[in-house]
Amino acid sequence: MNYCSECGAKVEHRIPEGDNRVRQICGHCETIHYQNPKIVAGCIPEWEQKILLCRRAIEPRHGLWTLPAGFMENGETTLAAAERETDEEALAKLTGVQLYAVYSLPHINQVYMMYRGELVDGEAAPGSESLEVQLFAEADIPWNELAFPVMSETLKLYFADRRAGSFPVRTGDLIRMADQTMQLTRY
Amino acid sequence: MNYCSECGAKVEHRIPEGDNRVRQICGHCETIHYQNPKIVAGCIPEWEQKILLCRRAIEPRHGLWTLPAGFMENGETTLAAAERETDEEALAKLTGVQLYAVYSLPHINQVYMMYRGELVDGEAAPGSESLEVQLFAEADIPWNELAFPVMSETLKLYFADRRAGSFPVRTGDLIRMADQTMQLTRY
Repeated sequence: MNYCSECGAKVEHRIPEGDNRVRQICGHCETIHYQNPKIVAGCIPEWEQKILLCRRAIEPRHGLWTLPAGFMENGETTLAAAERETDEEALAKLTGVQLYAVYSLPHINQVYMMYRGELVDGEAAPGSESLEVQLFAEADIPWNELAFPVMSETLKLYFADRRAGSFPVRTGDLIRMADQTMQLTRY
Repeated sequence: MNYCSECGAKVEHRIPEGDNRVRQICGHCETIHYQNPKIVAGCIPEWEQKILLCRRAIEPRHGLWTLPAGFMENGETTLAAAERETDEEALAKLTGVQLYAVYSLPHINQVYMMYRGELVDGEAAPGSESLEVQLFAEADIPWNELAFPVMSETLKLYFADRRAGSFPVRTGDLIRMADQTMQLTRY
C-alpha cells in the first residue's frame, strides 16, 4: 500500500498511539489502514464413499488436483462461501454441510475453513476455474498431484476419521519455516 | 474506497472480466481491490468453574461485559490471536486452548472464532481496553449487560455443553434481518 484509499494522499508506516504494530496511516486524513488475514472456505464433497476433486485450470498449481475452495466474500457466511465455491468450481450442489477442519497458514495470512457435505445428486462438471472434476475412492486419490499441503492434510484427516466413524472438527496450523519446509501442528 | 492504494488513481466500480461481483478497480493500473471478511478471535477463559469477563473501556458498548476478543492480525494463527487478545484485554495467560465456536456475522463482514482455555494461574487484570475484569460463576453472569449477541450465544452454548460434559465445536450464523432483529442459526 502506497496511497490512502480514502483521500489519495501518501501513507506513512508507523505505530499509531495506543497500538503496538506498524500500520499504514494516511499522512493527510489520518485513516489507519489495517491489513487482516483472509478466509479460504471450501468443501469435501461426498458421494457414495467417494469424494470430489477438481483439477485446476488456473495458477497457482495449474493442472493439479484440489478440493473446491476459495476466498470468502463480504456479506456471506462461511458455510455459504463453501457451498458457492463448490458450485463455481465443480457445478455441484451440496446438502448436510458441516464444518470439518480449520487451519491457519500465517505465512500467507490465510485461514482455511473446510467443510464436508454430500452431493445432492452426484452430479458435477468443471466450472471455469477447473479443467475437470472427478469422484475418487480413497485408494485412487492422486496424493502426489494435490495442489496444496493444506488439502493433503485435510484429506488425510478425513479418511482417518471416516474409518474411525466420526468427524470431530479438526484444527491446526501449517507454518512455513525459515528453511522453507512446512511445519504441521494439530491441536 | 475512492483511490487506488497502489498508484493513487481513482477507482472504478465494475465487474471484472470472468468475475460476477462489482469490485473496486483502479482506472489507471487495473489493480482489483478485493474486500473480504475479517476474523475476530477470542476466548472463554476458565478458572475453577468460573469464567473471565472484561468490562469494556472502549466503544462500541463502553461499560458492558464481554469475552476477550479482537481482530486477528496478519502473520498469526487464530489460536495465537485468541491468546494475544486475552493477554491484551485481561492481562491473562491461557493453557490448553481449544476451538469452541465459529459464527458468521455477514451483515458486518465478520467471522467470530471463539476458543476456550484455562487460566494458567487464575491471575487477570484490566488491560488498556478494559475497565475491569472479573471471574463469574454461571449464576452470576450479567446476561443483561453483555456487549454483543454473539458473546451471549457463545456463553449459552458453553454452559449447556459444560453441564452435558463435552465441548464439540459449535457453528452457526447471526444474521441481522431487514427489520433489524437478529436471526440465529445453529448447524
